[in-house]
Amino acid sequence: MDKTQLEQRIVARGREFFQSISGEAPSIFNKGWWTGKVMDWSMKNEDFKVRLFRFVDVLPALSTTESLTRHIEEYFASDSGDLPPVMKAGLTTAGLAGKLGGKLMAKAISANIEKMGRQFIVGQDAREAVKNIQRLRKDGFAFTIDLLGEATVSEAESEARMQEHLDLMDAVAEAKDKFKPLGDGGSGLDWGGEPVVNLSVKPSAFYSQTKARDFEGSVQGLYNRLAPVYRKVVQMGGAMCIDMESLDYKDITIELFKRLRGADEFRHYPHLGIVFQAYLKCTDQDVAEMLTWARTQNLPITIRLVKGAYWDHETVRAKQMGWEVPVYTIKAESDAAFERVSRHVLENADICRLCCASHNVRTIAAVMETAQALNVPESRYEFQVLYGMAEPVRKGLRKVAGRVRLYCPYGDLIPGMAYLVRRLLENTANESFLRQSFADEADMARLLEDPAAAAERERAARPVGREAAPAPGPFENHPMIDFTLPEAREAFPQALARVRAHGLREVPLFIGGAPVYTNDVLDSYNPADTGEVLARVHQAGTAEIDRALEAAVAVRGSWRATPPAERAEYLLRAAAHMRANIHDLCAVQVLEVGKQWDQAHADLAEAVDFLEYYAREMLRLGAPRRMGRAPGEVNLYQYRPKGIAAVIAPWNFPLAISTGMVGAAIVTGNPVLYKPSGLSSLVGHGLVEAFSAAGLPAGVFNFVPGRSSVMGDYLVGHKDISLIAFTGSLEVGLRIMAKAAVPAPGQLQCKKVIAEMGGKNAIIIDDDAELDEAVQQTVYSAFGFQGQKCSACSRVIVLDAVYDRFVPRLVEACRSLRLGPAENPANVMGPVVDRAAQKSIMAYVELARKEGRVLVERMPGGQDCAAGCYVPLTVVEGITPEHRIAQEEIFGPVLAVMRAADFDQALEYANSTRFALTGAVFSRSPRHLERARAEFNVGNLYLNRGSTGALVERQPFGGFNMSGIGSKTGGPDYLLQFMDPYVVTENTMRRGFAPIEEDDDWV
Amino acid sequence: MDKTQLEQRIVARGREFFQSISGEAPSIFNKGWWTGKVMDWSMKNEDFKVRLFRFVDVLPALSTTESLTRHIEEYFASDSGDLPPVMKAGLTTAGLAGKLGGKLMAKAISANIEKMGRQFIVGQDAREAVKNIQRLRKDGFAFTIDLLGEATVSEAESEARMQEHLDLMDAVAEAKDKFKPLGDGGSGLDWGGEPVVNLSVKPSAFYSQTKARDFEGSVQGLYNRLAPVYRKVVQMGGAMCIDMESLDYKDITIELFKRLRGADEFRHYPHLGIVFQAYLKCTDQDVAEMLTWARTQNLPITIRLVKGAYWDHETVRAKQMGWEVPVYTIKAESDAAFERVSRHVLENADICRLCCASHNVRTIAAVMETAQALNVPESRYEFQVLYGMAEPVRKGLRKVAGRVRLYCPYGDLIPGMAYLVRRLLENTANESFLRQSFADEADMARLLEDPAAAAERERAARPVGREAAPAPGPFENHPMIDFTLPEAREAFPQALARVRAHGLREVPLFIGGAPVYTNDVLDSYNPADTGEVLARVHQAGTAEIDRALEAAVAVRGSWRATPPAERAEYLLRAAAHMRANIHDLCAVQVLEVGKQWDQAHADLAEAVDFLEYYAREMLRLGAPRRMGRAPGEVNLYQYRPKGIAAVIAPWNFPLAISTGMVGAAIVTGNPVLYKPSGLSSLVGHGLVEAFSAAGLPAGVFNFVPGRSSVMGDYLVGHKDISLIAFTGSLEVGLRIMAKAAVPAPGQLQCKKVIAEMGGKNAIIIDDDAELDEAVQQTVYSAFGFQGQKCSACSRVIVLDAVYDRFVPRLVEACRSLRLGPAENPANVMGPVVDRAAQKSIMAYVELARKEGRVLVERMPGGQDCAAGCYVPLTVVEGITPEHRIAQEEIFGPVLAVMRAADFDQALEYANSTRFALTGAVFSRSPRHLERARAEFNVGNLYLNRGSTGALVERQPFGGFNMSGIGSKTGGPDYLLQFMDPYVVTENTMRRGFAPIEEDDDWV
Repeated sequence: MDKTQLEQRIVARGREFFQSISGEAPSIFNKGWWTGKVMDWSMKNEDFKVRLFRFVDVLPALSTTESLTRHIEEYFASDSGDLPPVMKAGLTTAGLAGKLGGKLMAKAISANIEKMGRQFIVGQDAREAVKNIQRLRKDGFAFTIDLLGEATVSEAESEARMQEHLDLMDAVAEAKDKFKPLGDGGSGLDWGGEPVVNLSVKPSAFYSQTKARDFEGSVQGLYNRLAPVYRKVVQMGGAMCIDMESLDYKDITIELFKRLRGADEFRHYPHLGIVFQAYLKCTDQDVAEMLTWARTQNLPITIRLVKGAYWDHETVRAKQMGWEVPVYTIKAESDAAFERVSRHVLENADICRLCCASHNVRTIAAVMETAQALNVPESRYEFQVLYGMAEPVRKGLRKVAGRVRLYCPYGDLIPGMAYLVRRLLENTANESFLRQSFADEADMARLLEDPAAAAERERAARPVGREAAPAPGPFENHPMIDFTLPEAREAFPQALARVRAHGLREVPLFIGGAPVYTNDVLDSYNPADTGEVLARVHQAGTAEIDRALEAAVAVRGSWRATPPAERAEYLLRAAAHMRANIHDLCAVQVLEVGKQWDQAHADLAEAVDFLEYYAREMLRLGAPRRMGRAPGEVNLYQYRPKGIAAVIAPWNFPLAISTGMVGAAIVTGNPVLYKPSGLSSLVGHGLVEAFSAAGLPAGVFNFVPGRSSVMGDYLVGHKDISLIAFTGSLEVGLRIMAKAAVPAPGQLQCKKVIAEMGGKNAIIIDDDAELDEAVQQTVYSAFGFQGQKCSACSRVIVLDAVYDRFVPRLVEACRSLRLGPAENPANVMGPVVDRAAQKSIMAYVELARKEGRVLVERMPGGQDCAAGCYVPLTVVEGITPEHRIAQEEIFGPVLAVMRAADFDQALEYANSTRFALTGAVFSRSPRHLERARAEFNVGNLYLNRGSTGALVERQPFGGFNMSGIGSKTGGPDYLLQFMDPYVVTENTMRRGFAPIEEDDDWV
Repeated sequence: MDKTQLEQRIVARGREFFQSISGEAPSIFNKGWWTGKVMDWSMKNEDFKVRLFRFVDVLPALSTTESLTRHIEEYFASDSGDLPPVMKAGLTTAGLAGKLGGKLMAKAISANIEKMGRQFIVGQDAREAVKNIQRLRKDGFAFTIDLLGEATVSEAESEARMQEHLDLMDAVAEAKDKFKPLGDGGSGLDWGGEPVVNLSVKPSAFYSQTKARDFEGSVQGLYNRLAPVYRKVVQMGGAMCIDMESLDYKDITIELFKRLRGADEFRHYPHLGIVFQAYLKCTDQDVAEMLTWARTQNLPITIRLVKGAYWDHETVRAKQMGWEVPVYTIKAESDAAFERVSRHVLENADICRLCCASHNVRTIAAVMETAQALNVPESRYEFQVLYGMAEPVRKGLRKVAGRVRLYCPYGDLIPGMAYLVRRLLENTANESFLRQSFADEADMARLLEDPAAAAERERAARPVGREAAPAPGPFENHPMIDFTLPEAREAFPQALARVRAHGLREVPLFIGGAPVYTNDVLDSYNPADTGEVLARVHQAGTAEIDRALEAAVAVRGSWRATPPAERAEYLLRAAAHMRANIHDLCAVQVLEVGKQWDQAHADLAEAVDFLEYYAREMLRLGAPRRMGRAPGEVNLYQYRPKGIAAVIAPWNFPLAISTGMVGAAIVTGNPVLYKPSGLSSLVGHGLVEAFSAAGLPAGVFNFVPGRSSVMGDYLVGHKDISLIAFTGSLEVGLRIMAKAAVPAPGQLQCKKVIAEMGGKNAIIIDDDAELDEAVQQTVYSAFGFQGQKCSACSRVIVLDAVYDRFVPRLVEACRSLRLGPAENPANVMGPVVDRAAQKSIMAYVELARKEGRVLVERMPGGQDCAAGCYVPLTVVEGITPEHRIAQEEIFGPVLAVMRAADFDQALEYANSTRFALTGAVFSRSPRHLERARAEFNVGNLYLNRGSTGALVERQPFGGFNMSGIGSKTGGPDYLLQFMDPYVVTENTMRRGFAPIEEDDDWV
């Protein structure tokens, strides 16, 4: 059959299908019901939809009437919102919480939403589920059951999840005999070949430590817990399908499927399936590879093809990480891919059975007709529909295709809310087939159009890409590393090997464009193995500082006179050098300061970002700004460098913070003396390489590692230093400020100090927080890079109402982390930076034992940890603001848990420190989020996100109070600090004649 | 005759006129000549025109070939310019100065421009002038002679100018008999009634101290020197016409005319004329009043009506000062006014003779026909044309009207350059009748259209005014006071009387919204008369500081939470209060610190500007800025107040600087403790009144005058002070910085210091400077408010080549200034602020005598100065950078003159100080101006303008090095210093669902 004929048949089949179900609407759109009215409203009102879906999300967490009423008021009684009439009565802005009517209304709303949720769920317990499944089977529908709930934050939870699945299988096994096979040919199987019991599993939750970086560990971890479940399924003669979640887990899931399918004990058993998502651009290739694998292995498999339900997530994440968007951005492209991939599977029907999971009538018709055209036996494909969705479709399907399986979620609403929101989103999406066919009554011909043609048309209609921006183009963050790519995973061990192959590095100073060697040398070692010395770093004394200052003074005038655009060029070239050498530069950090792969890469990306951003900022600020518009005068507001900068950098973001401060000073026209931390001077030397590669004039950048005790005060107090950019401890910062405030003899300017200092950052866990995220983000914020970030969370303030739910999960999550050397990608926490840090932190661990109750104190144990600077991951509860543990910056993996009576007290605790750097709040109460915005005193506040990981430009970073006296790094005001503004006013009128400027305000 | 008929006749007459001169072009447009070609080019190329006119302006100052060649290269050899072919040959970007060809070309260019200049001048000496006049008379033209040169900077120069006029009259008297009367009826007079000799005088130069503020003094000063000239004119039976210059002098000139005309010795003599300018909106009324006066006094007069030649100047000045534009902005409106006013004069021909001075054929035709229609005798009106312009018109006029007088400038090119540039401008203006009729050959009908109709049409075609801007509208500077208005001149004595009528003022502290009285009281006296005690000011001790801090702490949270727009409202209301009470507030300054009227008003205007500008700035900065465009997150960059501010203010801009610092602190959300200077606490108390009137919440603004020795360190070091805004001396500034850098016990934030300190500002006088302006601006910058401004010029660096031309003029200018109490508007310099300042400055005067040669040392002498804190106005030469006089801030009227070998050394001298506040350069060398932009190290650099008088927003003010550590006041970065930036990052994705923000970058 040729393409045109097939297309005609598809459209004919579709029309027939539509006609058979005409006049029927999916139950959710039944406008007689509350749900139908509200869904209808939300499709017309984006703001209401956002509030509704967010409320749906938080609803299961609202355990008291008060809390429920308050949230309803916060979400829906705001003046900005148009409410649907069914929700309006009883809701007024003021005083709702206190009124009986309000309370009743609140209960009604929550009851209705629960009802809406239950519509998509086959049962909240096994009894109910089995009963409903029986009813469905009576109507002629097969089922696959899915246990609601996705995230697990600890191994205990993953273990529990496995157990739940085993228990479910037991319950189903018990009921199994009640299920009469459908269309049985006497096989005891549905439709003569399919097991009656069918289980769908979302794999990631089976191993809480799944992460792309640790591919093999993740596959293993998942396998270990999924195998027992599958074993049980096989034992009862059931079928299992491994669902596909977000792209993060895709390759791991595929590998997991292969291992399960190919395992000796399971090779004989054909009923294992895997899901592919048509919206992913990579699916054509993934499915082709899978079919080849199945054929090569001679293992029959099942593929369930879906459109994909994480479109927002994939798009947002890609955009946030700087990756190419992995999903199709035109809906018809996904539909076309669905048809294309399903045809590919049908062409291999002998080895692969197809489950077509779609509510799209066109798609269904296409699969039917294609299968027929290819003469695929009916037993080799079936149709699947979600329980509670698109009822007319499932009815129609049963009539024409017979083999319809319903995907039946089962379990509590609380873990199922993510599922519910996805379903609501699907139902209300502008482009959703569901909405178009049943809600909008759109034109049938259009709905049945060949999606490939529609996609083509839409692509053509889209505006062509923006004009090529003038170099250097708008700022974009350097992409985060994507460890789902094998090349990313392989790059790190290779780079580590390369760096180690260098052997011991001799690191000289770099002054006036030339290396300088001294007699004072400091070793730099690997904190994971103090026996591994990486570099011998030459140390500057005051003589070398003098020499570097001479070089800086010599070039000061010409560098100041270098046009801003040219100065910016050097930064861009340095950035290019870093990008080209990113893995080697990362590897140095892994070895010298013990950064995990992702953390090291984030540091490099930030360094590149600083260079790229400040270069552009200088272009912006370098352009003189005309002030006023009076004719006859031109006033130009401009900036000039302050002079010569001393940059004193820390070791914890050893390249990023150094690059930021140095790059800012240089691009604004200030020659620099850069003193890296003694603990990360090898990393710091990377700047010498980058700026040399950029061709920076000699003397503009001088690398002067040295002992603070020897040359610190001398450098800071020197008359020729105009500006000190410092990041480090409060103690050193205050010393610098005091020193800089008193002019040295012969000093010609008041010194400017830019100091970023400590933090004592808190995360507040509100009583309605989404705990899956809250636990994971708290763990990451507190223990990422061993808590050695100024932004690290060192206090988690938990509301009493949620304390007993949150803290045990947190503790279990901490117990599940893998600890050990950073170079092993499985390890989440490694050594602290040196022996001194180890000692200081151990003292705080000791103090924690005294001041509170230690909940977790996990010391990395293995052989590979023997020679490292390790400290235990520590969680301590019973801490109040009076404790030293709640006040002092520990700079290590010690997390204090504070219990707060209510949100007021939580804010009070959070603010009870002299630092004001970062903070986070996990809450789904709009009012509490509003209060946090206004009252949580920190420089970087994160709502429903962890407290670390600020990105250049997107989250300009820095605090106030005792956390710093600089304006935020990576932000629009940062460069101003390195310059003095000046104004040139020209009287342009001569002899009564004034030339006309473009923006003059003449008359 | 009705209007239509008249109009028809005018057009017919105009056509006839045009036809009679068709085919003729004014000599300047003769394209065969160099001038014609260059003029043609400049009309097509605005950039070239600007460079050409500027070069014309500087040309007379170029005394050496080297200088000439260099300037030609700088003006014309830049790569940006298209040159006319006649100038191109020999001019290349590089190396012109060294090439013989270049030198020849330079000479050719300068010779051609000189020739162009001479075209408009009847002679450069008396002999030449008389010869040319004779020739003109032979051709049938009468003349009026005008001595070139306008500005005088000293009484010596004014005296010399009078003498030049007397000499000219002598020379003319000698030649007089050679002039045969034109159209003589035997009377010996031209046309039977007009004197053969006719003199035009520009009056302002006859009294160098003419200023609108001192109306009576100015009229007297002018009268004293013009009367002798007029006497001589009368004696020889000549006529004199008083020219009208810029609007500044208009009313003074009118009054001067009336006094001369009405003086007993001159009443009998009818040949005195005055000029009115048709482009001024006020001319209808001025002429009507003048005619009434003449009729009332029964004194025949002559009015010369011109269009007006200062259009750019009047427009620019009005725009810069914030005044309504006084001239018509549509060219046809001026033409219509010319016809209207001339008709009014012709209607009064019996008492007033009309001289119609226009090159516009339509205008001429209108006057002819109107006169005829009104039956005005021919002897009662004549026509005037400028010498060297519009030759065809003058020829045609002579034919049809007979009575044509040529306006003949006479004298050196150097003083005549302003005249030349005005003529070139007139010839090349887009809307010029000259250009249209002779250069563009535009449509005759259009040229002869009734200008009233044309104006009507153009007004209708103009876009209607901008949409009403949303409150509070864009920032506009408060208008400068316009002392040409009698009400402005009268307001000051009235306000002084009102303030004095109050008697001794009791000034309490103001804390937490209530007055507070203490036992420690300090008197504030009038520095012009130390016996006049103005106020008893209660002084704060540490107890009052504690009390004020309590009040500030109490309101800190609520003030911070007050929305920015609301905080801005309070500032706008305070500004409204100041505007409503501006004269009384000025009067307090005149009395308490000895400010001249204009200086006091400028201080008030600046105070109002600060409030208005910072209010708007806060609206701008108060709006959260979204960072990044990644979907699923919203990052808002915002600012929060630092805490509580101590504002420590100086006495020299007692209201403006206080208001700026206090207003900035308040509007950014910081409660304030304001310590005014002890020398200006009564002025400072004006802030209490303004903020009380604005309804500012209690505790936000606290007024705590006090003795620094008692409470200064306590205030600065207090743990609750987050921010110190200081303006004052370097010594005190450094003390504050050192104190603030060390945290007090319990202090929760690092203190921010914003300090504006001293200056040692220089003005460079280049060898090609326009000296009229340079002298006047140097005098104003050095001695305005007795030199007690941080921006005051205390060093004038004069290039050797111009030293002997500049310094004597400067010295004479200083000798011409009137000194004495500031409340007398005639006085330019008054007392210094107190006895201590007097003593300190006297020591510097003593030092000046030792270190250099004192050129001027003028002590105010009169009776009214006996009890004041006076110091001499001092100018000292022979100063080099090593001298203390060249290094220390004197803060008084002591000006050091430094001689520099060349521009390099001038810049070196200028930069040889640790201050970097203001500076100015008078130069007409584009390259030197460029170098000054790059190398003159000051916060505010002024090119061809004095070094004082920065305006809010237009010239953000402040310096660097030891001049300050703050960003510029009244500028876009100023408020940032009072706030900490913070970022709130919200993860907006929940359950895979992200709402869409407007500027998301999805796909």
